[in-house]
Amino acid sequence: MFEGVYPPIPTPFVDGEIAHDKLAENLTRWNRTDLAGYVVLGSNGEAAYLSEAERAAVIATARQAIPRDKLLIVGTGSESTRTTIERTRAAAEAGADAALVLTPCYYKGQMTTEALRRHYFALADASPIPILLYNVPKFTGLELSAETILELAQHPNIAGIKDSGGNVTKLGAVIRAAPDHFEVLAGSGGFFYPALVLGAVGGVLALANVAPDQCCQIYQATREGRHEQAQELQLRMIPLNAAVTTRFGVPGLKAALDLLGYYGGEPRSPLSPPNPAQVEEIRRILGEAGLL
Amino acid sequence: MFEGVYPPIPTPFVDGEIAHDKLAENLTRWNRTDLAGYVVLGSNGEAAYLSEAERAAVIATARQAIPRDKLLIVGTGSESTRTTIERTRAAAEAGADAALVLTPCYYKGQMTTEALRRHYFALADASPIPILLYNVPKFTGLELSAETILELAQHPNIAGIKDSGGNVTKLGAVIRAAPDHFEVLAGSGGFFYPALVLGAVGGVLALANVAPDQCCQIYQATREGRHEQAQELQLRMIPLNAAVTTRFGVPGLKAALDLLGYYGGEPRSPLSPPNPAQVEEIRRILGEAGLL
Amino acid sequence: MFEGVYPPIPTPFVDGEIAHDKLAENLTRWNRTDLAGYVVLGSNGEAAYLSEAERAAVIATARQAIPRDKLLIVGTGSESTRTTIERTRAAAEAGADAALVLTPCYYKGQMTTEALRRHYFALADASPIPILLYNVPKFTGLELSAETILELAQHPNIAGIKDSGGNVTKLGAVIRAAPDHFEVLAGSGGFFYPALVLGAVGGVLALANVAPDQCCQIYQATREGRHEQAQELQLRMIPLNAAVTTRFGVPGLKAALDLLGYYGGEPRSPLSPPNPAQVEEIRRILGEAGLL
Amino acid sequence: MFEGVYPPIPTPFVDGEIAHDKLAENLTRWNRTDLAGYVVLGSNGEAAYLSEAERAAVIATARQAIPRDKLLIVGTGSESTRTTIERTRAAAEAGADAALVLTPCYYKGQMTTEALRRHYFALADASPIPILLYNVPKFTGLELSAETILELAQHPNIAGIKDSGGNVTKLGAVIRAAPDHFEVLAGSGGFFYPALVLGAVGGVLALANVAPDQCCQIYQATREGRHEQAQELQLRMIPLNAAVTTRFGVPGLKAALDLLGYYGGEPRSPLSPPNPAQVEEIRRILGEAGLL
Repeated sequence: MFEGVYPPIPTPFVDGEIAHDKLAENLTRWNRTDLAGYVVLGSNGEAAYLSEAERAAVIATARQAIPRDKLLIVGTGSESTRTTIERTRAAAEAGADAALVLTPCYYKGQMTTEALRRHYFALADASPIPILLYNVPKFTGLELSAETILELAQHPNIAGIKDSGGNVTKLGAVIRAAPDHFEVLAGSGGFFYPALVLGAVGGVLALANVAPDQCCQIYQATREGRHEQAQELQLRMIPLNAAVTTRFGVPGLKAALDLLGYYGGEPRSPLSPPNPAQVEEIRRILGEAGLL
Repeated sequence: MFEGVYPPIPTPFVDGEIAHDKLAENLTRWNRTDLAGYVVLGSNGEAAYLSEAERAAVIATARQAIPRDKLLIVGTGSESTRTTIERTRAAAEAGADAALVLTPCYYKGQMTTEALRRHYFALADASPIPILLYNVPKFTGLELSAETILELAQHPNIAGIKDSGGNVTKLGAVIRAAPDHFEVLAGSGGFFYPALVLGAVGGVLALANVAPDQCCQIYQATREGRHEQAQELQLRMIPLNAAVTTRFGVPGLKAALDLLGYYGGEPRSPLSPPNPAQVEEIRRILGEAGLL
Repeated sequence: MFEGVYPPIPTPFVDGEIAHDKLAENLTRWNRTDLAGYVVLGSNGEAAYLSEAERAAVIATARQAIPRDKLLIVGTGSESTRTTIERTRAAAEAGADAALVLTPCYYKGQMTTEALRRHYFALADASPIPILLYNVPKFTGLELSAETILELAQHPNIAGIKDSGGNVTKLGAVIRAAPDHFEVLAGSGGFFYPALVLGAVGGVLALANVAPDQCCQIYQATREGRHEQAQELQLRMIPLNAAVTTRFGVPGLKAALDLLGYYGGEPRSPLSPPNPAQVEEIRRILGEAGLL
Repeated sequence: MFEGVYPPIPTPFVDGEIAHDKLAENLTRWNRTDLAGYVVLGSNGEAAYLSEAERAAVIATARQAIPRDKLLIVGTGSESTRTTIERTRAAAEAGADAALVLTPCYYKGQMTTEALRRHYFALADASPIPILLYNVPKFTGLELSAETILELAQHPNIAGIKDSGGNVTKLGAVIRAAPDHFEVLAGSGGFFYPALVLGAVGGVLALANVAPDQCCQIYQATREGRHEQAQELQLRMIPLNAAVTTRFGVPGLKAALDLLGYYGGEPRSPLSPPNPAQVEEIRRILGEAGLL
């Protein structure tokens, strides 16, 4: 169901307010690529900075701008089970094809496998759309173990996971033992090709915002057994992937989009735009990757 | 300004909804103690699980139930600067005496001293009430360093810090070098007395919900030079403090309140109440501490 | 130079003393496989528990039992530069083909890139045999970054790295930018195949002690473009790899060897043999992997 | 038994070799203070960089230079139980009054409470001198929990702990529940006074190398109820304590000793001396602390 490449798209702001026209324009341009769909309201969408009303508005704009043959996956995770259910139902009604649900993480010490099972199973029972788990320890400080993932994967409405942790040993353990309906998506362009060869069905990649064609080529080359090409592209994308993730974060991703003719713009505070020297570095990396 | 002991009070729920009558009743009982005030909508208040409307309602109930000679400190932290400012202004209008502001932490890698300075200074400029920093690495995965705290302490409207990290070496470094207007509050009963002897002015202690008199006695004994008594009480409180914090969390705190005749009740999911064996263990610990 | 599969072999003990005959017998049996060579005195060799005299004796026995067409790689790392140089020179004189050199890690906070450059460059200058870096954060608590590795890789006598950290994003960054003479070896069977597709030349795998043929098949299948077979074998080996590494450690590896007809024996204290239930679990896993 | 202040003394080198005359001279000078004794071959003694023969020689020199009314505590920890027993017996024969025994930590995942009990109990049974546990997570990556410490404390020949972790909540839990014969020593000057008020009997403090009088005064003032003086001294010592521990490490401690007229000298590689700007900073901090 989730085969292919999905960019977790940023939320564009003008003067601090959501710029729906820019969001639609970006999507229109991405629609011309082979991307299988989009994640909105994920980490790269600065969802943590949006009000409930703003979230609803972003979904509406995205749904309108995304053709029906591409998936709209919406980030709906929240600390509490009740709010997560509310957000997921609202996203489904607004046309989302699936929900990407961050692990609750504030009370880390209490987030046992049992607590996470309670949370995700209640959600999966209540949700009219499939649930994707979302493991991103660099943001949550919480790592879903293979054992926990495999337990959650037993629910028929839990359809897969976006795992951004980069532990391919763990991904292998999940792929090996998960039920057939459960799919693994690489959560970062840094290990996309290695995840694919292990059996991941695709990726949700910040990198795919700025290099959609290259990411789709890695996917296609791997599917078609052109491993040398996949390897070459994977290695070539490494500095750019780092630039739009760990090195410069969402602000770096937005700056890269601006340099590529999309609308990136400024993040909300306390994030701040890269300084001019950092922008030059991003420009250099985009050039080196053959994107300028 | 913040001298004394403050419990970060839980938010009571009945059938999953906020029980304002129980909240008021609990406060009425705590009001008879020497507690200097209260923190509402902190970590122990399950603020992460409350909607904006629920937050406002809790503040209203608390303000009404708390006499003017006790401080009402309200947790207003949020990931974004704009929401944090909105919440803080609303809390001030609703009668809060100060705001306790959690470090933004989702984009951990980007939360540099500069980003935190931008966040807290914008807030302190905009807020009509004093700002208390709130460092709680076990929940946020982010530790404010002494250097960052001392830089933030330069703002005249940043009045102090609740530090739950337990690093007293760092607390000493802050107390030594902070400007006079900046006060340090211990953030856990586990190191309350050691923090006081270093120069902390008080504490925001989950323990103070269940042992308000003992916490106030530790405070008074230290102030009056009765160190043996302070030490004896501090050591006696250790198992109870662990029970209502790291061992059983907010659910354990609520269970302990129930055992003591306050209203505790159940937490919201994905937190869950302690099982019967755990409740018995909490009862045993309360008994050992001389509270039953 | 280091293409292929290398088991980091355990040091056999009888009544707490090194059993050189058992060591030679194990090697004789492994010699019949396609293994490219061996690592002695690594983490799985309990090198941390051996005296200098015992280390020398193990090298002598191994050298005699290993044919010249298989590499003898010797672990020589030590906290101090001088001892590391002494051990490396002694290993070279005793016939080692290369030295595997653990990162010094006791004074973690001082082990800057500059300190590590000083350490490894002095060693590489003094060593008559090539140096392999050894990154194993689960034991050292220290993670060599891609930047540090790439700086160390500039020395012509630093020939590569065994990286056990499992971060394939980092491995990709190293493979992409390292000089031609610098080779990457996967440090655990959990990510052997993904590392190979990124450009690793081989692996130093605890798993290769108990499943040498399967590891060599993963290597060959990848080299020859039989990716489905490589993937299938990689996934099949996951539980066994976990059993002889993270789950049961060196004691588990030794127990597995015993079950397979090699000599495993007991580890030195404070390590202790797996209990009977754990041995049964290891037997079950070996059976499931098709090795019994 | 262990009441008072102990500096963990550095091992002086001249041209890379141990300078026994400098060691004796330093001790002669420290002997004039109220220090209760010394720790040799600890972390600050660069024990990790010394051969077994060098360790023996350091003990011999120290024993000769230390009067019988001051304790000689020797670091004897090793990864293996057998080597730790050998070193401890040798130290006892050479006149050590007690052994300070680092937690084995290489196979971190296997160092369960049970494994540590096996290690320390075998040692305590075999040792003619009392054993002090040594917890220093910043070097070992392993934190002894209160539960584990309390289990180890049951052995009559395990006399106490040097805890450098700085978690005073944990120290309180240990002090509260440990048997009478078990004593707690603060392991860093950063939390010496807070540890004393909780019931620690003294401290093993890098700071005591450079500020022996001030450390003894903190100890005496606390014992005699002069808490304001103890607090004032504790706060005054904070920057100096940081300089000779976390900021500049053993090299910084040695540079500070040189500036104070002791012999410090250079550490062994891969440690390196502070650069001139860092030496100036250390000089400034010593001046600010009133030591120049």
